[in-house]
Amino acid sequence: MPEIRKDPVFGRWVIIASERGLRPNEFRAPAGGAQAYACPFCAGNEESTPPTIYSLPAEGGGWRLRVVRNKYPALEAGGSSENRHEGIYDRMDGLGIHEVIIETPDHDRRLEDMPAEAVADVVRTFVQRVKELKQDPGIKYVMIFKNHGRNAGASLLHPHSQIVGMPMAPLRVLQEIDGAAQYFRERGTCVFCDIVKTELAFKKRVVSENAEFLAVTPYASRFSFETWILPRAHSSHFETLTGGAALALAETLKTVLGKLTASLADLSYNLIFHTMPVQDAEAGHYHWHIEIMPKLSHVAGFEWGTGFYINTVSPEDAAEILNAGRKFKF
Amino acid sequence: MPEIRKDPVFGRWVIIASERGLRPNEFRAPAGGAQAYACPFCAGNEESTPPTIYSLPAEGGGWRLRVVRNKYPALEAGGSSENRHEGIYDRMDGLGIHEVIIETPDHDRRLEDMPAEAVADVVRTFVQRVKELKQDPGIKYVMIFKNHGRNAGASLLHPHSQIVGMPMAPLRVLQEIDGAAQYFRERGTCVFCDIVKTELAFKKRVVSENAEFLAVTPYASRFSFETWILPRAHSSHFETLTGGAALALAETLKTVLGKLTASLADLSYNLIFHTMPVQDAEAGHYHWHIEIMPKLSHVAGFEWGTGFYINTVSPEDAAEILNAGRKFKF
Repeated sequence: MPEIRKDPVFGRWVIIASERGLRPNEFRAPAGGAQAYACPFCAGNEESTPPTIYSLPAEGGGWRLRVVRNKYPALEAGGSSENRHEGIYDRMDGLGIHEVIIETPDHDRRLEDMPAEAVADVVRTFVQRVKELKQDPGIKYVMIFKNHGRNAGASLLHPHSQIVGMPMAPLRVLQEIDGAAQYFRERGTCVFCDIVKTELAFKKRVVSENAEFLAVTPYASRFSFETWILPRAHSSHFETLTGGAALALAETLKTVLGKLTASLADLSYNLIFHTMPVQDAEAGHYHWHIEIMPKLSHVAGFEWGTGFYINTVSPEDAAEILNAGRKFKF
Repeated sequence: MPEIRKDPVFGRWVIIASERGLRPNEFRAPAGGAQAYACPFCAGNEESTPPTIYSLPAEGGGWRLRVVRNKYPALEAGGSSENRHEGIYDRMDGLGIHEVIIETPDHDRRLEDMPAEAVADVVRTFVQRVKELKQDPGIKYVMIFKNHGRNAGASLLHPHSQIVGMPMAPLRVLQEIDGAAQYFRERGTCVFCDIVKTELAFKKRVVSENAEFLAVTPYASRFSFETWILPRAHSSHFETLTGGAALALAETLKTVLGKLTASLADLSYNLIFHTMPVQDAEAGHYHWHIEIMPKLSHVAGFEWGTGFYINTVSPEDAAEILNAGRKFKF
């Protein structure tokens, strides 16, 4: 059973999940290389994953998208929700849910190369899973993320994303919501709505734009080529997204990931949904969005865990390079 | 001139330093490999760095330690300290100081293999530089750090550390001090003093111990094999360290880095001093310390920038492996 431990200085919760260390890693496959073992996410290998929780059928039979429990979960069901004190320290069982969305049966298909409707299926599945997981009142936050590539910590190549339902919101999420609440108290507007307005007027950090979504390289980008996707209309909870907006988001995702792939060789990235804790009411001060953080090889390791970010590519340069489709070399 | 930009949601400051992207990187040396160009930190190549700011003489002539200005600085002198508003955004010139401590003239010497007295020289140089930089009242924080190895974002192999004097404390530092202040208000004791006491009693997370310093794998370790070094006696400001304690710290550093190197193949790490802002008074609630974060290849990329940490090696297992000198394989 994973364990959640609280740092007594920060109040930061950390998951200690030893069994997760046992998961296979395609990027570290020794003799024989990546092809030496059968990918558990490929069609035909369904036996090597836990059973299907949710799926969408393919036209010719079989599935086009599958959701399964993560075989090596960061958090899992069962155990107690009790907070246990050990002197100055606090810990609790690593209670929660960890699911994997297998985005396609095709091992070599990247999200940006899938038809927009197929990406919209992935987005609608995210919505469906959040709505399902939040039925459990013990699940306070649902984190949706995608790790792509070796430098982003991905262990399998096959296109997939992950959903973690957890018993508390991560500290960084709470700090972000607090920051937005403070902005709202001071100015009476949502900071993200103001960012959308500012970036649409300034233009030089816009990477993609349609009727529903805006993608920008943020003003204070921590990482080179960091890109955020924001809904243009205010909305605090991702899971209120409608079917039509899911298609617009899919198109934005395809454009942004396509541009990043075109400009950055051997692209690795972490893509993270930021949204309100699922049991909280609709809020005027917070605005869900997606943050995409490219992990350029061997760059910026220091910022990890220090909060002291040094970025060598300005967001204006990054947007210009991405929009021109120019190759960038570190 | 680098620029400092403030994220309007978090209040997080980010340094945008485009010229730093031009620095040479030994780990990405193409044809010819690492030996193809002359290391600017080796004895004899003093011309390829900015002039010496401070140095210690070697017995047979020449130098045994050198401090120079960073040729590709994250922050630099000159420019204005004015905070400029651009609509909802804030920015200022990247005013500050960025120095490099070349720890030895020997390219292939690792810190842990140097004699304790030579490591103590490095520690005493850190103290000397902080005392010097804090003379400028515009320097509010001095960050001392060492990036070792490719995965830690180091660009040169030659043993070196870095010192950045900056016009504000990084947000993460302020949050840590706030967390410690809250603990102090609630319990009347320093949280780090309580950690020292708890870990000395528990024993199972201790990696090194002498009369002055304690090294432990912290209870809520974010990274596998994360190790902290804490002075046993309360002290908020690193720069108050005396010459004798510098030797004790050098011995602890040698032990800890030696154990990490023995257990972890191809070790990369970030080593960061956490200390009070230099213009602030001695504080009862905060305790300076060192955090060492091994960067195990291609693991845990996701935690970067999310604050959601998953660690697959418990700190108790990590301490046991390090103390047994056992090889660990991911």
